[in-house]
Order: sequence, then C-alpha cells, then structure tokens
Amino acid sequence: MIVILKKNPDPDQLEGLVAWLEDQHIKVHPTVGAEQTILGLVGDTASVDQDLIAALDIVDEVKRVQEPYKNVNRKFHPDNTVIEVGGVKIGGGSMAVIAGPGAVESREQIMTVAAEAKAAGARLLYGGAFMSRSSPYAFRGLGEEGLQYLAEAKRTYDIPIVSEISDDSQLPYFKDVDILLVSAANMQNYQLLSLLGKQEKPVILTRSFSATYEDFLMAAEYIMAGGNHAVILSESGIRTFEMYTRSMLDVTAIPVIKQLSHLPVIADPCRSVKRAYLVPSVSRSIAAAGADGIFLETHPDPTHAKFDGPQSLSPEVLKETIEAVRRIKAVL
Amino acid sequence: MIVILKKNPDPDQLEGLVAWLEDQHIKVHPTVGAEQTILGLVGDTASVDQDLIAALDIVDEVKRVQEPYKNVNRKFHPDNTVIEVGGVKIGGGSMAVIAGPGAVESREQIMTVAAEAKAAGARLLYGGAFMSRSSPYAFRGLGEEGLQYLAEAKRTYDIPIVSEISDDSQLPYFKDVDILLVSAANMQNYQLLSLLGKQEKPVILTRSFSATYEDFLMAAEYIMAGGNHAVILSESGIRTFEMYTRSMLDVTAIPVIKQLSHLPVIADPCRSVKRAYLVPSVSRSIAAAGADGIFLETHPDPTHAKFDGPQSLSPEVLKETIEAVRRIKAVL
Amino acid sequence: MIVILKKNPDPDQLEGLVAWLEDQHIKVHPTVGAEQTILGLVGDTASVDQDLIAALDIVDEVKRVQEPYKNVNRKFHPDNTVIEVGGVKIGGGSMAVIAGPGAVESREQIMTVAAEAKAAGARLLYGGAFMSRSSPYAFRGLGEEGLQYLAEAKRTYDIPIVSEISDDSQLPYFKDVDILLVSAANMQNYQLLSLLGKQEKPVILTRSFSATYEDFLMAAEYIMAGGNHAVILSESGIRTFEMYTRSMLDVTAIPVIKQLSHLPVIADPCRSVKRAYLVPSVSRSIAAAGADGIFLETHPDPTHAKFDGPQSLSPEVLKETIEAVRRIKAVL
Amino acid sequence: MIVILKKNPDPDQLEGLVAWLEDQHIKVHPTVGAEQTILGLVGDTASVDQDLIAALDIVDEVKRVQEPYKNVNRKFHPDNTVIEVGGVKIGGGSMAVIAGPGAVESREQIMTVAAEAKAAGARLLYGGAFMSRSSPYAFRGLGEEGLQYLAEAKRTYDIPIVSEISDDSQLPYFKDVDILLVSAANMQNYQLLSLLGKQEKPVILTRSFSATYEDFLMAAEYIMAGGNHAVILSESGIRTFEMYTRSMLDVTAIPVIKQLSHLPVIADPCRSVKRAYLVPSVSRSIAAAGADGIFLETHPDPTHAKFDGPQSLSPEVLKETIEAVRRIKAVL
Repeated sequence: MIVILKKNPDPDQLEGLVAWLEDQHIKVHPTVGAEQTILGLVGDTASVDQDLIAALDIVDEVKRVQEPYKNVNRKFHPDNTVIEVGGVKIGGGSMAVIAGPGAVESREQIMTVAAEAKAAGARLLYGGAFMSRSSPYAFRGLGEEGLQYLAEAKRTYDIPIVSEISDDSQLPYFKDVDILLVSAANMQNYQLLSLLGKQEKPVILTRSFSATYEDFLMAAEYIMAGGNHAVILSESGIRTFEMYTRSMLDVTAIPVIKQLSHLPVIADPCRSVKRAYLVPSVSRSIAAAGADGIFLETHPDPTHAKFDGPQSLSPEVLKETIEAVRRIKAVL
Repeated sequence: MIVILKKNPDPDQLEGLVAWLEDQHIKVHPTVGAEQTILGLVGDTASVDQDLIAALDIVDEVKRVQEPYKNVNRKFHPDNTVIEVGGVKIGGGSMAVIAGPGAVESREQIMTVAAEAKAAGARLLYGGAFMSRSSPYAFRGLGEEGLQYLAEAKRTYDIPIVSEISDDSQLPYFKDVDILLVSAANMQNYQLLSLLGKQEKPVILTRSFSATYEDFLMAAEYIMAGGNHAVILSESGIRTFEMYTRSMLDVTAIPVIKQLSHLPVIADPCRSVKRAYLVPSVSRSIAAAGADGIFLETHPDPTHAKFDGPQSLSPEVLKETIEAVRRIKAVL
Repeated sequence: MIVILKKNPDPDQLEGLVAWLEDQHIKVHPTVGAEQTILGLVGDTASVDQDLIAALDIVDEVKRVQEPYKNVNRKFHPDNTVIEVGGVKIGGGSMAVIAGPGAVESREQIMTVAAEAKAAGARLLYGGAFMSRSSPYAFRGLGEEGLQYLAEAKRTYDIPIVSEISDDSQLPYFKDVDILLVSAANMQNYQLLSLLGKQEKPVILTRSFSATYEDFLMAAEYIMAGGNHAVILSESGIRTFEMYTRSMLDVTAIPVIKQLSHLPVIADPCRSVKRAYLVPSVSRSIAAAGADGIFLETHPDPTHAKFDGPQSLSPEVLKETIEAVRRIKAVL
Repeated sequence: MIVILKKNPDPDQLEGLVAWLEDQHIKVHPTVGAEQTILGLVGDTASVDQDLIAALDIVDEVKRVQEPYKNVNRKFHPDNTVIEVGGVKIGGGSMAVIAGPGAVESREQIMTVAAEAKAAGARLLYGGAFMSRSSPYAFRGLGEEGLQYLAEAKRTYDIPIVSEISDDSQLPYFKDVDILLVSAANMQNYQLLSLLGKQEKPVILTRSFSATYEDFLMAAEYIMAGGNHAVILSESGIRTFEMYTRSMLDVTAIPVIKQLSHLPVIADPCRSVKRAYLVPSVSRSIAAAGADGIFLETHPDPTHAKFDGPQSLSPEVLKETIEAVRRIKAVL
C-alpha cells in the first residue's frame, strides 16, 4: 500500500500515523521529495483500512498495491482450479457447454430440450425454475415442480443439471441440482453469497452489469471465504451506452480474469446479446478468447418460449454453434 | 406498442400474429409503406410479451410506447405521493433530511450522533446495523444490538429512524425502525423487494449503479405490486468511466423521475461522491434540482469511523450543509 | 417514423402537423387508442427533422423506424463492399492483417519492422508520423520525414502503407500512403471527415470511445456523402467503468455492424487493451467474430519503443498471433 | 511516481532501470517487502515516460502520484483565474450567463434573441454559424454571414459574443467574436487545440462525452501549452447507459475540477439534457454546485428553430431560469 501525503504534513499527525501502522506490524518506508512525501507500507496490508487512512488530514491519496482478494487470487494459487461435476470437467483447458431453456415450462419441454442439447454436444443441462425477472408481472418459473422435471431429465439423459437460486427458502428444492447459478442481478446479494459459501456444490457466479473485475472477484471471495471453493465465474456483459444489446459482452474479461484468478471462467452470450442472430459469432469469440465453458440458451421452439425466446437458439443453431466452438478450441 | 415488420413479411405469419394479438383484445392498425410496414397496437399492451413478438421471423423490431410500470406511473396518479413518518413528511415540496452514521458503532456513538444530527436540523436518524459490504472481511455492523441502540436514540431524541435491511431473517429486529432502506446492491434482489411489498412501513429504494430510470421504477413497481405503496426513491449515482468518485450522482434523475412518477425522490450524495469535501456542493445541487429529501452520512469523528469515514460529514459541516440546503429550498 | 402524441392533443395543432408532413410528401397513418394516439409516417422520412417534431406541444415522443444513414446501410446495398489496395482485399471474407509501429522512429526501425511484419504474415504496413496524443508534451511523430521512411519501406518490401491523418495541412505528405487512418479522437472531427470524403483513397475510420453503432455509422456516412465510398470501419473499444484496459473492445460490434452495413469491419486490439499480454487472445476473438481484418501494433523492441510500447507485440508474438488468427479464420 | 516490481526481479534489469532513472535526475527510493518491492521516484517525473517503464519485464505496475498537467493545475496556481471579456468577468465567484440560439438563422432572428437574452439577464450572446452536426445532411449554419449578423447584434446591444469554431479555415471570420467555443466532438481535435493555443482570445472548451476529468484537463493543457491561458472549462455531460437524455450532466465535476484546477468552470445543460422541460431544474443545480457560469440555448420560437429546438428555452423560461440561478448564487 502506498500513502501519498499532502505537502508539508503536520509532523505530529505523521508520527501518529506511523505509530498506528507499526502497531499493526506494518513497516513504513518514507520517500521524501520536494513536492511530495510518499509512504511505502510493507506487511499484511490486506487488513489495513485504506479508507480510514484516506480520511486523515495529512493524506492526499492511498493506492493499493496488493489486490484485496486472497482465495480467488492466482498469486497465491498459481494452478488452475478444475471443478468436476458428474464426470464433466470445468476449468483447465476443457470447454464445458451448458445448454437449456431460460425457463422449464413443462415436463415434455425439458425432456425434449435435454435430448436435443445432449445430441448437439452439450454436457450440462440448464433449466430455470426460480427466475429473477425485472417485472413483477412476468412469469417467474414453475418453482419446485420445474426442478422436479429438470431432475427427471437428469436421470433419463444422464446429464448434470444447473439452475438459478436466489434465496435460502429455495434451497430444499435444489437437492438434485448439481450446480447453483447466481444471476447478474444477485451478484452483490451478500446474504445469498454467504449462504452459498456454506454449500457443498459448485456455484456459477454471473458478473453484474456494473461490476468491475475487482467487484466480480470480491463477490467470488465472499463465497470462498465461507468455505466453498468451487466457484465458476460467468462473464455476461456490462452495461454501456450502446443499448442495441442488453449488455456488452466483455471478451477481454476472459484473459484478464484468468490472469488474476485461478478459477474457471465461462461466458453467457445469450443473456448479453439478447438477439439470437448474434449468438453464433459471439460464442466463437468466447471460445477463441480461451473460456473454460459457455452457457447457451436453447428452446425447441424459440418463437413460442415463455421466456428469453428472442435470445434462445433453435436445436439446429445450437448444434452448429457447439461444433464451431469445438473447432476453434481444437486449433488453439 | 409499435411492431416494425421486415420487408415483404410472409402473409400467413402476419395473419397469425394479428389473430394472436386480437385474441388478447389488442387492436392492430397497419401502416403500409414502400420500405416498411408498421403495426400500431392499441389496448392493454402492458400484458403483451414484447420479447415474444420481437422473436418472430417477420418482425424487425418492437417499440414500447407505454411504460411497463403502472403503480409508480404519474400518468395514472397525477398527484405527488406524500409519506408521513412520525410527523415528518417526505414528498410534495418539503425537504426531509436524514442523517446518521454508516454504522452504529456503540450506544454512546449513536446517542451523540442523534443529538448532533437533530441540532443540525436533520428530521430522521439513520444508522447501519446490517450493512452490505463488498468485502467478506469488512465490518458488517452490530446487527440486533445496533438496532437496539438506534431505537434508544429514537426514544430519547424523539426522531424517527431508518436502517438498511437485506434479508427476511433480519425482519424481527426491525420492529422499531420507521423506514426500511434497500441498498443499491440489492435493488434487483427480487426476493427482498417482494418481502418489502408485504410490509406496512415505508421503504427507501436506492438506485443501483447500473439501473436505467426504467429499471429503477420497475424495482419500485415490485414493492408496490405487493401492496406497499410507501416507496421513496433514492438517487445514489450510476457507474461511469470516471472513477474519481464511487459513482456519478445524476441530478437530472430528480426532475426526470418526478415527471415519470408520483413517488418522492431523495438523493444520497455521500455514498456516491465518496469524498467528504464534495458533499456540501453536491447537496446544494440536489436541493436545487427539486429533491424531496437528502440522506447525509455523519460521524462525531469521521477520521475514526469504522465505516464510510472518508465520506462522512463532521457535525459542523453537517449543520452548514443542512442550512445551505434549506436556504436554497426557500428561494426556489 | 412514429410520432406518439400526448393525450387529447389540440386538434388544430394536430391538423397543422399533418399538413406540414404531407407538404413534405410524407403519408400519415393515425392509430387512435383510448390512452394514446400514434402517427405512422411513411415516405422519405430521412429528411424530416425528428427533433423539430419532438419539440411540438402535442407530441410525447418520436421514434425513428428507419436508420438515418443511407450510403452505409446494408438495406440499400446488400452486397459486402470489398476494397482492394495494392493487391490486398479488405472485406468479403478475407482477413487483412495490418501491422506496424505506433510511431515511425527512424528509417532503420521502419525498415526492420516492414521486413518482420511481412515475414510474420502481415499484408499492410502501418506507421504513425502525425499522431494524436493526449498530452501536448508527448512525442507526436516525425511528420513528413516519417512518411518518407514509410514510403521507402513500401517500395523496398512491396507492401501497401497506412498512416494516421488529422488535418488538411498534412495531406500533401500522404501522396504515397495507400490508406488514410482516422483515430478515435477524430471520429467526430467533421471538417476532417468532409475532407476525406473528397479523397480518392480508402479511409480507416476508428470508432470513438463514446460512439454508439449509429454514431459510428453516421461518421462513415459523412465520408461517403462526400463521394468517397471506400470506408473501412475499425472497432477499437468504448469507454466503460472498467479501466484496467484503455477501452473495452466490443466484439459484438463486429456481427452487428456487418448486419447494419455493407462496409468492411476490422478491429484494433492493441490500442484498446493497452497491455500486450492480452492481445493474442483478444485477436483470436476478433477473428472468430468474423472481422474482415485486424490492426496489430508491433515493434522490434517494445521495451524501447518511443510510443505505445506496452501494447506493442514483439516480432515473435506478432507471428504467432497472425498464425492463430488465420487458423481460426480457416475453420469458420 | 511509484513503480511496483514483480516478485524476484532480475537484479541486472533492476540496476539498469535505476541507472536510467538517475540519468534523468530522478531519485529512486526502494521499499523492499516479502511479497513486493516498490520504487518511489522523486524529482521531475512529469517528463518520465510512464508507459515505457510499465513495459519492462520486471515491472508489475506504475502509478502516477503527480498529475500529468501543469498549467491547468491548481497546485501550481492556487488563485482562481478570472477572465474578463467586454466588461464581463468569468471565474472567481461571479455567475456569467451566456445565452443564444444553437444556430444564427437570420439577421432578424439573432437581433430578436439578443434583445430578449439581454433583457432576461444574459451577459454574453451565443450564436452558432459553423456547427458540428452528426449528420452530413443536417443544416450546419450560415457560416460567415451568420457571424456578421452576430457581430451586428454585438454592436447594437453592446454584448460580447461567443461562437463555435472547428477549423483554422474559419478563423478569418471570427475577428469580432469575443470567445471561441470548442464543441464536445472536437475536445480531442489536437490540431484545433494547438491552433487555439496561439490565439489571443478566451476559449470555452466543452468536455467530450467520453472524457475523464484528467482527459478534460489535458485538453485544456494543450491550449495553455501553446501560450493561451484564457481557457474556460464547460461541463456538458458524459455518455452513460441512460439515454433518456443525450448525456448525463455531471454536477460533481464542478467542485472536483475547481479543486484540481484554477480555471473557470461553466456548464451547458441544454445540449446535455436535450429536453427543455429539464433545463430549469438542472440549471439551478449547476448554480448551486458553484459553477462560474452557464450556457443556455434560447430561441424566440423553439418549435420553429432550425436546430436544437427541443432543448431551447423560450424567452420567458430563459428569464425565469436566469432569475432562479441568480437567487441561488445569492444565498450561497
């Protein structure tokens, strides 16, 4: 941590600051210049309150040199984390494809999708049952019944399942669900993150529309700090002034986050681009950037989907997209 | 709602769409041009699924003409909503000042703040006890104990109290709290919004960093759809590329939201600007823009605050800021 | 164009508006609803002033249905534009690789780069001589002398050359330059765009940090309206709250713009990501998204570059990146 | 400047870096920690190339401690700059009101506006003659003729005049113009900034939609580095995801920039909010935040304006707005 002092700092206050830091076993190295004095702090500065120092009269600015996250940080865990679920590996070079409908609509629908998704090359099945919707008047899923149909598809087609969770009251229904998904809207729902930190199942954490890389990694740190180290980071775009798409998918996030963290990184193009015609090319980009997986929304008949229809792939396009993604992965 | 068709739409599909809309009691008025055909839909289009229409092959784009929110919409409720709590009015031309520390730290601290805030002219007392923090290692408040101290301050100084809630498990401790506050991080925590829709207490809903005006109003609609019509909207800035401040406080939001909705609008400069030196001038701006209230963080000794120190006002600056705000309100 | 009227519009004003529109050969189709009346305008609405209508008392909102650009619009030119320069094709499925240093530093340096870039697989050579720099104290290039060295490299290595232009006073020095590049900072320098509209050379137009897709296409329209139809659009990222990179490269822009326009689309990862370690993966993404070309900064010795060093590729990394890009293009 | 080294830096490279810095008369103070080594650089670091250091293999990151601007920096010029034009002071506590039409449309129109604006309390007259328009098909002003009418209004009503300039070819027509305005689109047109640096007239520099505070101040530094120290900074909003308004007016920028720089700061609400109904409240906010001036678009008949009609104030609203602004300024 670097503390930049104002010009001519009060010597008593400066002495007080240095003593307070040394009490916390932080060594202080001053660099005195004509215009500015800088303090270099060395030691376990993660526990020092940066904001508190910044509030002092004699301080101009505080700059963090070390990242505020530990468990997610690649510096302390150089090897890639690989998460295995029902024989499917996520992380470390493979390309895990998750596919399924935004909403489980009926037993028949999810059984059809499961068959089609598996045939198209998907290795994990998604189905929404407790969905986060921005309108109180919108369909929010079949709830427990939806998860039962999803579990039946899992057994019938021998494919691990993924579904969105948003509250502890839903937890009892998720017994058969293999991976719990946190939507972008809940990325900073710290109650939920704390709850998931105590589960023994992998969690897919979706980046919120306004999350910096650090915000995103700090949300993962929340889950890991609770004891659950099986976190998969899902890039899903951020909000920008270009509203042609719902969010702007940030492919650069893929190599950046893989540099900063050892956790697997996947991406969610459908929810970001909102228009199915864009999904194949953006999916290829995601694979080319080095993602560990991809989440594709699909529906037997997108035009009649109850949810997310405009961004869902038909079975044919799903198959073509997965094939293209695998071809790219193969030539990297 | 306006449906813009692609050039030369398939006549069967077009007929199907019109029939489907008419089944929903929507009248369809086509405008046929050389380049484009446009359908004007008239009726209760709020219940028509815009995304579903957009997904049709023959459709180029769908544009909503009516807002997707009803309860919050000024068109259907032309008069300003005024919320009264313990004799304090919020909305309709008054200037409600809420002040208090980011965190209740001790009985002594909150009693001191309550006395100072009241003397400075604040009419409502804030104190955090269950705080949303972006780091799992940060202090998250005294919980139940904090709310007990806050309630004691309420009784001693006869001032209504406000505190942040983030989960239904916390609800039992909020009996004495007069106004429940939803933080920016939880603005799209739909479980929480649904819960608050069933309470009989006013709610301050803080705008999330990535919420458009429509997103913000839809979150309020969630609470109102549950039956609780006492919602206060709090502008707290949005995230932009300028990171000198935590977020960019959007004063234009104040007149815009007052035009779109009848609900009271307040603003939260401290959490937005992050640096106490900016709070007085930004607070004056908020008053000048026509806000119904303001939320100011204060601490007897900001340098030693456990939370939000750099953005908290000292008692003297709090007093000056409230006086300036009232002077501006007086000359409008 | 759609005009949404306020409730109960004044009949005289409405009649006036309709008459004024009909004078401009626009047909007006009204859709009268209980809540709202909508006018559908049909005809050559590109010349109608949308802002003027929006300013009328009786009008609530105006929505454009047709794009405000004509020459760049794929609707009127369904076939891909292919631009050929010195035997190199840009557009229509090929992958044009432009490489070179941010600044021509010396005759020796640009000759070395030309040899290396050509060997690595680049087909066009870039070199900056009149650079847009955000600091008045920064090195702005060798000017005329730089372009002479660049032209010598062109002759020696038989490779077409590209350089940035920012003012008409520079034009005389660009005789040998094959493609003129407009930097992001100048995308809305309308004097410059008008000037380039009168040249007979292809122009690479770089997207500004705050340009929506429409802004970007309108800037291209400026050049085309002047008569120069050889415009290449270069995606270079937009500014967002994540400042780890200089801008956020928007790969989704590639398929979107190719859908909206017939012009070739390339991308400029180096200036966007700012850190060389990110360039290879982002370049692969760009190819996978379907770009017609890519612009890569390279330097024989990035550590000692006078400009853009941190984002420049060494000759080895340039070669690997171009090979990876071509492998991806081959499997699409 | 702070240089953060990677773990276990190569000693030879480190020695080389230190020697290279000392050659530039920079003193280097190392802080060696278990995890990280930090170099504190002291001396005239403004001339050291930060990017070049960042590109070194042994360097993790470089953080600037001092601002890259000198002439605009309040640290080196603690007193407010006050610019005087024709008896009107801009800066240092006064409230300079500039008013006028987006475009001079005719002699009659500008004479009418001049009379109305002066009567309403404006002290400077604006009129556009060479306008930056985002469409090549839009009206770009009367050019030389427009400036002649504007100059006539100046003589008749004894009021200093302001107009937009975008190119050196226009300069001869600006003899009678008192203040030259650079639009947001041209804020990074460095040719134009260099040209204005050699003029002996004050310049209003408008913040571009994607300019950080530092970008904005660096653009002013460009003009000042050329010798022209009469620069007025105009806040005009930045682009965000909320597109209800053209840009988001950033009132916080007013106190921030006044803290960082000694130059006068004004704001331009009309071009930012785009809708006239928002201008009065946003104008009051601007005054309350401490701006040195405000620029208001006005037109005798906004509905029939050739340009910027929807955002122009009628003479009555202009008068009310100026009065409200002055009342607020009086109570600060």
